[in-house]
Amino acid sequence: MHSQFGENCVFFIKLCLLTIFSDRLYSLAKDAPPSPQRPNIVVLMVDDLGFGDLQSYGNPSQEWNQIDEMIQEGTRFTNAYSADSMCSPSRAGFMTGRLPIRLGITGGARVFLPFDKGGLPKSEPTMAEMLKKAGYSTGMIGKWHLGMNAVNRTDGTYLPSKRGFDFVGLNLPFTNAWDCDTSQDFVPSGPNLTKCFLYNGDNVVQQPIKFDRLTEQMVNDWKRFLQQRLDMDQKKKPFFFFFSFPHVHSSQFASEPFKGKSNRGLFGDNINEMAWAVGEVIKSLKEANIDKNTLVVFMSDHGPHQELCNNGGSTAGLKGGKSNSFEGGFRIPFVSWMPGTVRKGGVSQEVISALDLYPTFKQFAEFDEETRTIESRQLDGVDIWPELKGISASSPGKNYNDVRHILGEPLSKRRPIFFYCNRNLMAARYGDYKVHFMTSPIFRNFSQESVRLIEEYCPGGKPKADWYMSQTCPEDQLIKHDPPQLYDLKNDPFELYPLDATKEKLAKIIKDVKAIVKTHRESIVKVPEQLGNFFIGLIPCCSGSPTDCSCDLYSIDQPHRHDLFPYAMRVPRNSSVDCEKC
Amino acid sequence: MHSQFGENCVFFIKLCLLTIFSDRLYSLAKDAPPSPQRPNIVVLMVDDLGFGDLQSYGNPSQEWNQIDEMIQEGTRFTNAYSADSMCSPSRAGFMTGRLPIRLGITGGARVFLPFDKGGLPKSEPTMAEMLKKAGYSTGMIGKWHLGMNAVNRTDGTYLPSKRGFDFVGLNLPFTNAWDCDTSQDFVPSGPNLTKCFLYNGDNVVQQPIKFDRLTEQMVNDWKRFLQQRLDMDQKKKPFFFFFSFPHVHSSQFASEPFKGKSNRGLFGDNINEMAWAVGEVIKSLKEANIDKNTLVVFMSDHGPHQELCNNGGSTAGLKGGKSNSFEGGFRIPFVSWMPGTVRKGGVSQEVISALDLYPTFKQFAEFDEETRTIESRQLDGVDIWPELKGISASSPGKNYNDVRHILGEPLSKRRPIFFYCNRNLMAARYGDYKVHFMTSPIFRNFSQESVRLIEEYCPGGKPKADWYMSQTCPEDQLIKHDPPQLYDLKNDPFELYPLDATKEKLAKIIKDVKAIVKTHRESIVKVPEQLGNFFIGLIPCCSGSPTDCSCDLYSIDQPHRHDLFPYAMRVPRNSSVDCEKC
Repeated sequence: MHSQFGENCVFFIKLCLLTIFSDRLYSLAKDAPPSPQRPNIVVLMVDDLGFGDLQSYGNPSQEWNQIDEMIQEGTRFTNAYSADSMCSPSRAGFMTGRLPIRLGITGGARVFLPFDKGGLPKSEPTMAEMLKKAGYSTGMIGKWHLGMNAVNRTDGTYLPSKRGFDFVGLNLPFTNAWDCDTSQDFVPSGPNLTKCFLYNGDNVVQQPIKFDRLTEQMVNDWKRFLQQRLDMDQKKKPFFFFFSFPHVHSSQFASEPFKGKSNRGLFGDNINEMAWAVGEVIKSLKEANIDKNTLVVFMSDHGPHQELCNNGGSTAGLKGGKSNSFEGGFRIPFVSWMPGTVRKGGVSQEVISALDLYPTFKQFAEFDEETRTIESRQLDGVDIWPELKGISASSPGKNYNDVRHILGEPLSKRRPIFFYCNRNLMAARYGDYKVHFMTSPIFRNFSQESVRLIEEYCPGGKPKADWYMSQTCPEDQLIKHDPPQLYDLKNDPFELYPLDATKEKLAKIIKDVKAIVKTHRESIVKVPEQLGNFFIGLIPCCSGSPTDCSCDLYSIDQPHRHDLFPYAMRVPRNSSVDCEKC
Repeated sequence: MHSQFGENCVFFIKLCLLTIFSDRLYSLAKDAPPSPQRPNIVVLMVDDLGFGDLQSYGNPSQEWNQIDEMIQEGTRFTNAYSADSMCSPSRAGFMTGRLPIRLGITGGARVFLPFDKGGLPKSEPTMAEMLKKAGYSTGMIGKWHLGMNAVNRTDGTYLPSKRGFDFVGLNLPFTNAWDCDTSQDFVPSGPNLTKCFLYNGDNVVQQPIKFDRLTEQMVNDWKRFLQQRLDMDQKKKPFFFFFSFPHVHSSQFASEPFKGKSNRGLFGDNINEMAWAVGEVIKSLKEANIDKNTLVVFMSDHGPHQELCNNGGSTAGLKGGKSNSFEGGFRIPFVSWMPGTVRKGGVSQEVISALDLYPTFKQFAEFDEETRTIESRQLDGVDIWPELKGISASSPGKNYNDVRHILGEPLSKRRPIFFYCNRNLMAARYGDYKVHFMTSPIFRNFSQESVRLIEEYCPGGKPKADWYMSQTCPEDQLIKHDPPQLYDLKNDPFELYPLDATKEKLAKIIKDVKAIVKTHRESIVKVPEQLGNFFIGLIPCCSGSPTDCSCDLYSIDQPHRHDLFPYAMRVPRNSSVDCEKC
């Protein structure tokens, strides 16, 4: 213990000096190459991955995979939160550092549908826009889900290329949906063209989407981006890349090398395929010898979609899941990685949020004071650069007093966590306490009595349909709590044992939280709702003929090879038979 | 991935050669020193530690501690089972390699009470007796719970010294109970003398038991044992040491250095104190330079006592807990450690059981064929030496085909797991399938509706009493399932989604399992029940005067020092003021 303590001590002193001097005294030119102080940034965001879905987060069945290897080399967080428990608001929050309610990502179906007119408002700078302004090269692939068209099938008003991303490879403006299933295991009637399309840049290239080589193609897009950077500008500027996995959302899929290999069936196959891609990213950074100058963040967008039964992921016992405001909905797996800077093999219990990434990246991107822009909007996150590096007042090492002066007041008090369901403020975490003002019903029920109910929805363990108990947060489904329900998340992360809020000390906490909530609510400015304003004529159509939108401008009839696409190639060079219809 | 594959490959070839040649061709003399082929054995058994109670098993609040460090150096198991879900039968199974029903550890309160006449039958050789016969030095400290007296307060018929342990330090023949609480947080009326006593060897030395320096004193006992071995016989023979923690069973306790330090309150303090002791054992083996010749197994005796709410441990989402037959009751944290032999940083999904340890230890203890004894009794475990070394057909590395020929048929098929509640065969795991013939009610309920119930039993998160929903398995509480409930534990370890057993393939599984169960049941020979035969005159009494049994022959009024007791000292050299009454 003592020698470990010594090591920790040296580690913290180093980091402390690094934090104090490198951030304050040195000034880097805007056109400097990436460095540990102003690194490249890669965000690997997974869709619907639960807190308990990885081996390193305690899943008893999931195979050890490349994410666990990444975790061994970086720091794993146990108290990381998403900005929301549904895709679009969560990603909007992550992308801007502001709560979805400030952005108007509320209403409708809680997520953007292909016929939604709205999108992430242009008045709200995205992380990509901010980083680009600060001198970063920017790129993205994968799931977007922050809006698409505003006027017709092709205007692409809200697509990633319009929101600060210079490089946009294969992407899914709308999340892949349950009825895009091509395995015919779940939806025998086949894919629904109106929901199942793949873009390359701003254009539909495949409708319906084909999953069998998607992961490989995405990795190739990443490698192409990386090669461009190495060839063109890495010596002058860092890059930001948003690798946004459509995995492990429904419909789930697995390519040939992964199919049928996982203990957990298709869901585990899908995780392992995604993990392979994570491994490829890590490997390519090492091979390019830029790993020490690249911060990689691996995270989920929110909790698992448990209504899908065994295909719905695990919270490791946390209550609830995607779409509700219990810990299972908001607490996410989260890993930071940058060899030499981020603590290796660390575990941090610091309370961090996806909302913190925008201000954190802004902080080190605008390293040069001259280029620093003043943020006039109210951000809901804070700078967590020390925490991302693995500095923690909690385990391992228990050096609370050694590092608290670096970290300041605990994050969970400096920046409370607000749990919204649409426009309803359901709960707040302040310090270790979580106060539920309202809760929504949970479908999943661990009790013996619920067996029949489960059988009804997932006969043989397989879901009948893609559905949510509380997707739209209708007022009549919410359960109001007065006095609010109070949990101590430090010793009851599972939210099983509400505390007696009538006791003096606890009543004081509720009073404090109510005051914080009041101030918070007063800061919310009413903005137009972006969700639920529908126009059927916005649905993309590859062929231009709404009666038959099918096409495939992307598939190439060749055997699987991970290096299939040369990095320089942007436009697909071939089209399949289906494309005769286009 | 490829380089890792290569490393794995070399690792497995080495192990394979080691397994084939070292085990078959060499012959070690009985009086040889320990070696990786015939190592020292230390079993660290924790009481009531849940599958999800450690950081490395996914607990979001528990601090990183010395067990996590041990895990980094060894192999962690995700499919390890206890022999039962209650203390006495579980430990009896572990100690003999035979199911408790074959031993008569059934009936009564499912565990030995201080006034139980029975004990682990002398006709059943213990692990210690077997190892001693094979030339090992043997020792134990801590919780016993396999019987005490048969005739009067002092005969000690079933104590560890009568069951193969030459060295017996501080020990608790009866588990420490809820009403031994000395913190007055839980039981203000103070300790119940009839349940709360500490032995040294065969004699009561403290009544009621004092917890404040117990852990430290146990570690000193271990160090004393180790020093004796190093001084006396380690060059001639290996040793077996059973370090049986009274932690984290109720009543929970924490010494000054750990009190109030854990996120999780007293329960976490107690875990961290126990973990400190684990670290001390590991450290002392390294310091003595015998770590490469010592197999250390860390394990729990069964699932967590969840009825104690936040003081009751976590299953990481597994269903149920202590006392019932769901995974939460039987699946345990389990780690094997032996630098140079056991795979470092490994995770194994092999289905192992506490029942396997007796046959495994026997296999390598009786290395010399001449001294090999024929086992006439039916053992319920199998040799898992390759698995303990970290050879696994599952993760990490997914080298299924590379190692399956070493491992043979999957353990979960070679040796099904039987889940008993007392004499009732509740369920069986065969391969990946678990068939529940009966289930018992679960108190803990994750649903919203149960909040009131929980509040009733654990107001403010603190339990009102030490109780079990199904401790005695009365027939009227058991729920019979016909057809049986069927789960695929590989993709549904949480036992949430029963499969439709009427389907052809699944009906075949149930038929197969029924046939296995039939053969198994036919092998059960009726033996006298050891539990429930009470005589109040058996309760130990330090003073000899049943009206006031209190004494303290052990405490020394000195400040905390971990090296307080010289290793050579066996008998306490001082007694406290209380002892005037003795």
